[in-house]
Amino acid sequence: MESVVDTTHEIHFEEMAKTVLKQHLSKKNYSKVFVLVDENTQKHCLSKFNAFFETETSGVITIKAGEIYKTIATCTQVWTALSQMGGDRKSLLINLGGGVVTDLGGFVAATFKRGIDFINIPTTLLAMVDASVGGKTGVDLGNLKNQVGVIEQPSMVLIFPKFLQTLEERQLKSGFAEMLKHGLICDQEYWSLLCSDETNPHQYEHIKTSIGIKGNIVVKDPTEQNIRKKLNFGHTLGHAIESYFLESTERETLLHGEAIAIGMILESYLSHRLTGLSRIELDEIKRNLSKYYKPIKFSKTEIDTLLELLKHDKKNEHGNINFVLLNRIGNAVIDMKVSPDLLKESFLYYMEA
Amino acid sequence: MESVVDTTHEIHFEEMAKTVLKQHLSKKNYSKVFVLVDENTQKHCLSKFNAFFETETSGVITIKAGEIYKTIATCTQVWTALSQMGGDRKSLLINLGGGVVTDLGGFVAATFKRGIDFINIPTTLLAMVDASVGGKTGVDLGNLKNQVGVIEQPSMVLIFPKFLQTLEERQLKSGFAEMLKHGLICDQEYWSLLCSDETNPHQYEHIKTSIGIKGNIVVKDPTEQNIRKKLNFGHTLGHAIESYFLESTERETLLHGEAIAIGMILESYLSHRLTGLSRIELDEIKRNLSKYYKPIKFSKTEIDTLLELLKHDKKNEHGNINFVLLNRIGNAVIDMKVSPDLLKESFLYYMEA
Repeated sequence: MESVVDTTHEIHFEEMAKTVLKQHLSKKNYSKVFVLVDENTQKHCLSKFNAFFETETSGVITIKAGEIYKTIATCTQVWTALSQMGGDRKSLLINLGGGVVTDLGGFVAATFKRGIDFINIPTTLLAMVDASVGGKTGVDLGNLKNQVGVIEQPSMVLIFPKFLQTLEERQLKSGFAEMLKHGLICDQEYWSLLCSDETNPHQYEHIKTSIGIKGNIVVKDPTEQNIRKKLNFGHTLGHAIESYFLESTERETLLHGEAIAIGMILESYLSHRLTGLSRIELDEIKRNLSKYYKPIKFSKTEIDTLLELLKHDKKNEHGNINFVLLNRIGNAVIDMKVSPDLLKESFLYYMEA
Repeated sequence: MESVVDTTHEIHFEEMAKTVLKQHLSKKNYSKVFVLVDENTQKHCLSKFNAFFETETSGVITIKAGEIYKTIATCTQVWTALSQMGGDRKSLLINLGGGVVTDLGGFVAATFKRGIDFINIPTTLLAMVDASVGGKTGVDLGNLKNQVGVIEQPSMVLIFPKFLQTLEERQLKSGFAEMLKHGLICDQEYWSLLCSDETNPHQYEHIKTSIGIKGNIVVKDPTEQNIRKKLNFGHTLGHAIESYFLESTERETLLHGEAIAIGMILESYLSHRLTGLSRIELDEIKRNLSKYYKPIKFSKTEIDTLLELLKHDKKNEHGNINFVLLNRIGNAVIDMKVSPDLLKESFLYYMEA
């Protein structure tokens, strides 16, 4: 598999990616090409990108690194920079970076002069297997994640696994959580393979499998009316935890995958109680996730604050929070309602030794 | 004509509008309904709206009145207010106001949690005949108009000409400029009718004619690839003039239609020089527009500044500014290039006694 191309996505890998990019630029004849990076990818990835990108760019725009800069204020900086460098409707924005760069850059492009083309080149494992596919763009509003955004597909996504060599182990693990999720919601065998000791979790083939799983789901339901919701497994509680840690002065920030890993254990417990996930599989999920992600202790007050934050979840409709739960490893059900008491119980299970 | 309904638009008038709105709300079962107003429409229009709107709203959000508040900062206020009042993906935003409220409110809705439904109830003549149709949403970036936005159709547009009674004469004239434009680019008879002394320019029938003309164009080319560009007649120079007056400390702000009226005279001169508009028709256009809109004197320096501002026009592609010009009253041609010298000449013609 050198490319994944369907009606809404165009994803290319390595050498093929370089060829297709070149053809695309020649066909589109963009008036200007801008590159968006953050401080990290400017330092570690831009020279690698320049080495194969032969077209002259009209400007590199650098934003600060980190989820706390995934804000409207940062968008304003990028819109202004594009404007000042003479960006027009026929300009192209290439987003070179992790999920913050691709989410924010996608939103900026989709809204600059009512929309210009953009290409995503994800440089983190998380962005490759998750943010790269599906067209969700957006930024946070205060401590509420992705409150402002649009769904807009990039012209193409280009995957160069070599960029992963620039990442720390903790970042790789964060992305790996989404890959484990793909197994849990869709593919029991893939889950087992990822969890088996022999596996190098970041190998090329697995990245492709994960992109394939996500792509398959998203193409059937681009606007998240039904099955796309499955991808939110672990994210309802995971996002609340991520938001809380981002805002809290007492807690160190969690990476997205670290928060989602906690969310997956919590929601697996809910699945055990509500949708028939067996106790054996529940414990298997907790055991395997705990191998990769250090357990966290939550106080009673923190749990209450987290449940309060849930009310702002985008999946909240008519005041009800919708959960994705498992009925077994490899199969998920959507639109499940959960009582506050059960939510609290799930934290007790998570914190059990 | 009680309604205009096609594949992309749903526009209803007066009693029909009330009926259709009621049916829509009952069918959609929104979790929450929010109303966006500015200080003026809160004062002059909200009680009129409440008198026929029987559904309970979850909150009224008020923004400051005026083009200078059509900013990302104001959007952030509205996004935050929606969030704090528990807005979710199944919420509806009703934009009750002029073009600033409908443009900004449309953008906020199209991007809140990646898009919620919105309904526009334009309260100014300009918003009724122009902003209400076509799905352009957005805000300004510094002194550059509509640099950030998306194209997104409202669920419906509801027209109540009674709201026009709340407007000052100057506001009515501003909207009337867009109606005159509709005649100039598409319909010579309509232009003559609007210019004839006997006509009450704001009468109901004319509003419908203008909405029909714009709707007809937009439905054929929603994303402005070709004929929709005709609607930009007068706007290339008009927008630059509007931006300049907005920013200048020495000039009083011009209303949109006032700036566009100047733009139409300037671009009619260009049309005479480049696309065959006769001298007789050119003078007819200048004479009629000058009846409604007081002429302005531009200094040499101001003209240079204006031509500099043109470079940021969204219609700028590959460094070339595309003009819409007339070959006769009632017919327009797109994608015309104009030399800087000729642009300067057009100002001289405009300022001739």
